[in-house]
Amino acid sequence: MNAPSASPDGLVAVGTLAVVGVGLIGGSFAAALRRAGLVGRVIGAGRRPETLAQAMSLGVIDEAVTLTEAARQADFIFIAAPVGAFAPIFNALGPELNPDALITDGGSTKQNVIVCARAGLKDRIAQFVPAHPMAGSHESGPAAASADLYAGRRVMLTPLAENRPQDVSRVQALWQACGAVVSTLDPAQHDAVMASISHLPHWLAAFYMRHILQSDDIALRLAMAGPGFRDFTRIAQGSPEMWRDIFLANREAMLGELSALRGVMDQAEQALLNHDGTWLQDALQEAARARSDWTGTGS
Amino acid sequence: MNAPSASPDGLVAVGTLAVVGVGLIGGSFAAALRRAGLVGRVIGAGRRPETLAQAMSLGVIDEAVTLTEAARQADFIFIAAPVGAFAPIFNALGPELNPDALITDGGSTKQNVIVCARAGLKDRIAQFVPAHPMAGSHESGPAAASADLYAGRRVMLTPLAENRPQDVSRVQALWQACGAVVSTLDPAQHDAVMASISHLPHWLAAFYMRHILQSDDIALRLAMAGPGFRDFTRIAQGSPEMWRDIFLANREAMLGELSALRGVMDQAEQALLNHDGTWLQDALQEAARARSDWTGTGS
Repeated sequence: MNAPSASPDGLVAVGTLAVVGVGLIGGSFAAALRRAGLVGRVIGAGRRPETLAQAMSLGVIDEAVTLTEAARQADFIFIAAPVGAFAPIFNALGPELNPDALITDGGSTKQNVIVCARAGLKDRIAQFVPAHPMAGSHESGPAAASADLYAGRRVMLTPLAENRPQDVSRVQALWQACGAVVSTLDPAQHDAVMASISHLPHWLAAFYMRHILQSDDIALRLAMAGPGFRDFTRIAQGSPEMWRDIFLANREAMLGELSALRGVMDQAEQALLNHDGTWLQDALQEAARARSDWTGTGS
Repeated sequence: MNAPSASPDGLVAVGTLAVVGVGLIGGSFAAALRRAGLVGRVIGAGRRPETLAQAMSLGVIDEAVTLTEAARQADFIFIAAPVGAFAPIFNALGPELNPDALITDGGSTKQNVIVCARAGLKDRIAQFVPAHPMAGSHESGPAAASADLYAGRRVMLTPLAENRPQDVSRVQALWQACGAVVSTLDPAQHDAVMASISHLPHWLAAFYMRHILQSDDIALRLAMAGPGFRDFTRIAQGSPEMWRDIFLANREAMLGELSALRGVMDQAEQALLNHDGTWLQDALQEAARARSDWTGTGS
């Protein structure tokens, strides 16, 4: 392991960075730190040998290694995998982890990831600083990796009671070096917030698509669909595996959201049944105003 | 009334065009026909004197008139109003309508508009060729009117059994002169298709917004919301009055959509309750593939 060089704001260069999952999220983290001059060598691990080979040929990683080798060699590890794949990754990293190494992650849910981390890392749990970078693209894979992916994007850290403050600062500084805006949240609060403003919209867009696919005249319907449909359904195009894992990992919060949403939807349907234009207009006005306040721009 | 000059494709210049509702939709129709050199004089009617004054000062219309005057003077009338306002408009136009005049409209639902037209126009119903231009903007009012609004956008005509073929051709040619791509549909089919690919997405986006507004920590949630939320909720910003009217006018089709959607949503929730990752992934895969096939571009 190379000797780290520290700065007062926690910005410590990484000698050997290991990226577990060398696609868009992992590859972009490596690319951003490389461009910032904050990383020496990048090693990559992952399930698919062809993806690792592609990442090497693109220069996203310098070498492909096993998870065990990643744990032995790295002084910083970034796990960028669907959240359903975290348990075996932590199990493999735990026994071989360097005592000075830190781990962060890109998982879209946090409580479930932390459970996996505790099980796999055991008494090394303090070395894991959980994170959720809110960035993505409709493209995926190492070819989509970009040093700019995190520029101006939000990263939420959900530190553990066991984390040392200087380690949290170091992880924060590295995310900031990628251009991200870093916030800190409690893991349960993170998962509740994400269920409502990210996971529920994806659920609705995807199952709305499934609903309209059951029409007899689906070809006609899709031919008539316009820009409103395009925007509303765009997120339904996300990775099915990633989203399956998110829904399962954040199941309790999702079920709570679905139950509360049903109350609102039932009330709206009742208003329509009753021809209650006043209720509908008030409710639509409230929604339109909230949406417009949110952007501040009408965009 | 000026003598119309005809061309073989039904492109007949309009001597006096009356626009009922001089905002984005009506003003843009007038502006596009003006730019195409297909209109002599534009008169405007509407509920709000200040909007009519603004439309005149912007040159969107040449003169503000009452509905009765519009019916007397115009040889072509375009009704661009929320669909809940159509009944009194047709009632006012009917008795004074020129025998050679044609009416088309911009209403987002068609069966309900046709019922109002039959009641108001009576034995002059053949002079009404219903249309639905699928164009809009988050801006509204005469200042937002643009000769380009309809360029490349779809306009659906839902002709009546009473319409003369040459009148349908003329209305189609004028919409094409605005740059629109014109399709023809049965009115009931139009309303069913719109309920599924336009009205239901708006309903879901708006009542999803209402749902999240009920959170205790709504400020935090909105602060964390990202690009997926932005796209998913954009349509919730549409005019509350226009959308109230659309939902009420297309009530039967909407209730049918909501009932069918509930079946899909219940099935998905059951899969989540059962930790059924296989079902979830298959359903998400189907949705993602359909969305991606729709754009053909991944956009």
